[in-house]
Amino acid sequence: MKMRFYNGLVLTAEDMEIRSGEIHTDGDTITYVGGEKNAPAAKFDREINLQGNLIMPSFKNAHTHSAMVFLRSYADDMPLQDWLFKQVFPMEDKLTPDDVYIFTKLAALEYFSGGTTACFDMYFYPEYIAKAGVDAGIRTVLCGSVSGGDNKADYDSAISRLEEYYNKFNGGDPLVSFKIGFHAEYTTHISIMKGIAELAHKYKQPVYTHNSETAKEVRECIERHGKTPTALMEELGMFDYGGGGFHCVHFTEEDMEIFRRRGVWAVTNPCSNCKLASGIAPLVKMREKGVPLAIGTDGAASNNALDMFREMYLASTLQKIREDDASAMPADAVLEMAVKGSALAMGLSDCDVLAAGKKADMVVIDLNTPNMQPLHNIVKNIVFAGNKTNVKMTVSGGVIVYEDGKFPTLDAEKIYAEANAAVKALIER
Amino acid sequence: MKMRFYNGLVLTAEDMEIRSGEIHTDGDTITYVGGEKNAPAAKFDREINLQGNLIMPSFKNAHTHSAMVFLRSYADDMPLQDWLFKQVFPMEDKLTPDDVYIFTKLAALEYFSGGTTACFDMYFYPEYIAKAGVDAGIRTVLCGSVSGGDNKADYDSAISRLEEYYNKFNGGDPLVSFKIGFHAEYTTHISIMKGIAELAHKYKQPVYTHNSETAKEVRECIERHGKTPTALMEELGMFDYGGGGFHCVHFTEEDMEIFRRRGVWAVTNPCSNCKLASGIAPLVKMREKGVPLAIGTDGAASNNALDMFREMYLASTLQKIREDDASAMPADAVLEMAVKGSALAMGLSDCDVLAAGKKADMVVIDLNTPNMQPLHNIVKNIVFAGNKTNVKMTVSGGVIVYEDGKFPTLDAEKIYAEANAAVKALIER
Repeated sequence: MKMRFYNGLVLTAEDMEIRSGEIHTDGDTITYVGGEKNAPAAKFDREINLQGNLIMPSFKNAHTHSAMVFLRSYADDMPLQDWLFKQVFPMEDKLTPDDVYIFTKLAALEYFSGGTTACFDMYFYPEYIAKAGVDAGIRTVLCGSVSGGDNKADYDSAISRLEEYYNKFNGGDPLVSFKIGFHAEYTTHISIMKGIAELAHKYKQPVYTHNSETAKEVRECIERHGKTPTALMEELGMFDYGGGGFHCVHFTEEDMEIFRRRGVWAVTNPCSNCKLASGIAPLVKMREKGVPLAIGTDGAASNNALDMFREMYLASTLQKIREDDASAMPADAVLEMAVKGSALAMGLSDCDVLAAGKKADMVVIDLNTPNMQPLHNIVKNIVFAGNKTNVKMTVSGGVIVYEDGKFPTLDAEKIYAEANAAVKALIER
Repeated sequence: MKMRFYNGLVLTAEDMEIRSGEIHTDGDTITYVGGEKNAPAAKFDREINLQGNLIMPSFKNAHTHSAMVFLRSYADDMPLQDWLFKQVFPMEDKLTPDDVYIFTKLAALEYFSGGTTACFDMYFYPEYIAKAGVDAGIRTVLCGSVSGGDNKADYDSAISRLEEYYNKFNGGDPLVSFKIGFHAEYTTHISIMKGIAELAHKYKQPVYTHNSETAKEVRECIERHGKTPTALMEELGMFDYGGGGFHCVHFTEEDMEIFRRRGVWAVTNPCSNCKLASGIAPLVKMREKGVPLAIGTDGAASNNALDMFREMYLASTLQKIREDDASAMPADAVLEMAVKGSALAMGLSDCDVLAAGKKADMVVIDLNTPNMQPLHNIVKNIVFAGNKTNVKMTVSGGVIVYEDGKFPTLDAEKIYAEANAAVKALIER
């Protein structure tokens, strides 16, 4: 399918300037970005008049557990440990692969309605996450989530699973890929972490994990190993081919220096960190030091939405509180993190900007809404005043998956009904 | 016009329970709230099938400067003093009454699209704010905003204006009322504050003002008067008939005790306080002590949206960070603040809950969206996952002012055009 988007404003994210222009797509690929004057003539299947609205790269969610939408608002306003051990874990124990499939599809609807077209998804039953992603038409980067104790069975299971998934999910469906990763230092014995580092070397691949989300996690790692999780992973050679840390709230200067030197991505999750009282990540300092930054929502059990507008707002404004400086963490830096940084963090180097040859993963931002008026500064409007009502259209891999409040490729009512039925059955199991 | 809303869920805010039921209205008043079985038969001009969605009291914005939408995203990411003195004040100096009219109307669109039907508005040219409110159909409570130095001219001007406005704006159009108020201690000489206290006694009225928004403001008041702004106002007898403080970020135990004893409302503005790096108000402590709580957006120059969903999210989650406790400030308390507390704080005692005889100020929350699924807990969904896409309909004084993304009573495109033209002329003046 060939499409033309014209009569609009374009933010390519190659820079953060906004210009008049048009965009052509063919299949899942962008074929032209530029002025209307120089645009090549072609026959299109659909020509979309943007009516002065803005088209830009879609949001990419660089850390999530999509299927956890099933726990949205199931348990909130609780201390973290009670929430995790009394509510989340017992419910997760009862999950079936089919549950993960339908809940991941429900999450895809939420992503599309918020202009997000890719997620870095860490959860159980990756085959079913991948299938839901392909069926829904969302780009899914699976993240390894192994863990385990000090015994051969755990070690063998973790390493063999990672290697199996790595080979199985890469090079297949273009919407699916897999990155080597593990749950966290505090759930994974050091012997397994060493095995993961070896695997990363074997395939020359980056390694991803939850890192320094809570003060307790860092304190206990230092008690166990005499160093922070980041310093430990660096020592094990886990970052020799890059990688990423999710959360990165309680970071030392040395941790930041390691991330900078290795080009490891710090993926911030401000809403989740706020709601679970984990803290505010030192993004201003990381940015000054040159640590590459990306944004994710975390799962809907702790957020409770998969909404990149809210993440962007908090990624900036919480820094202002943290640094006691209203000029901290400007809007354009945050928007760049959400569309470009997040894509690169999860290895989607062809989904980062709008340019010929890149994937057609795009969002049309409605500027004809009260919260976008007047039009002093569109980037600041998006970050500081924007919300999901400003998503007029979402294009995922060249397919329009959301338009004016509707999902043209998915039966939303059916997904809601199936997800609610699955939740009910799960609770009663 | 008589309307019937049926086949839905109802949250009256008399308690925070959700029940099946229906609602009837006649003109600007609710005539029935209850089960479908006992509903009186009547002839309606419109019957609205809620299709299982939720109807509840609309949001009330208990502190704002509506017309400041003209400065949205005009200057951000700046230190507070530069922002105020180099950007905001010079622009405000150029405002005309007609500017305030059109900008206030633009803000009304934003309120309606977010389910808000009343605002406690403190700004220049109150006649024009009131006219815009009446023309747009939004309930406007004007808040006095006088200030001035140690001289007779300032004193006479401030006190005579307050008395004139008090008598002019109360008892007229049912959508408009006026409360005695002043800008802030730091802009108002104590002689004027004494005069305001006398006026409050004369009319037996509450007094409202910006209070303890920044640490600097409190520190300087203590230097000037040996006490906090709250203690000073209490000493002057300003709270003998109640009142309210906007922001209330830097509050002492004694300040809270005064507010509790006098039934003075603490109106929190979490987004503005975060974005301007003012701090996080001690809401948990205030609530424990029994201080009455309400929520407002502040102006769009510092927020940058007039969005009560975002305020609610931050009103809860920032407390979790502040108190290092994920159980702090539960969702139902925050929702109650936004719909009921805010109404009572601004004197709208007939707009607080859904009941026969109360004003028909209501919002229909769309539950058929991905972010509201599954339906474990609707109140938590609204506070922790909700956003403006969930506003299906807004009813202000018995009139449908927003429905499925459209403004049936207002020409939004015309207001956008007029507002942008006014901004352009203002910048060029």
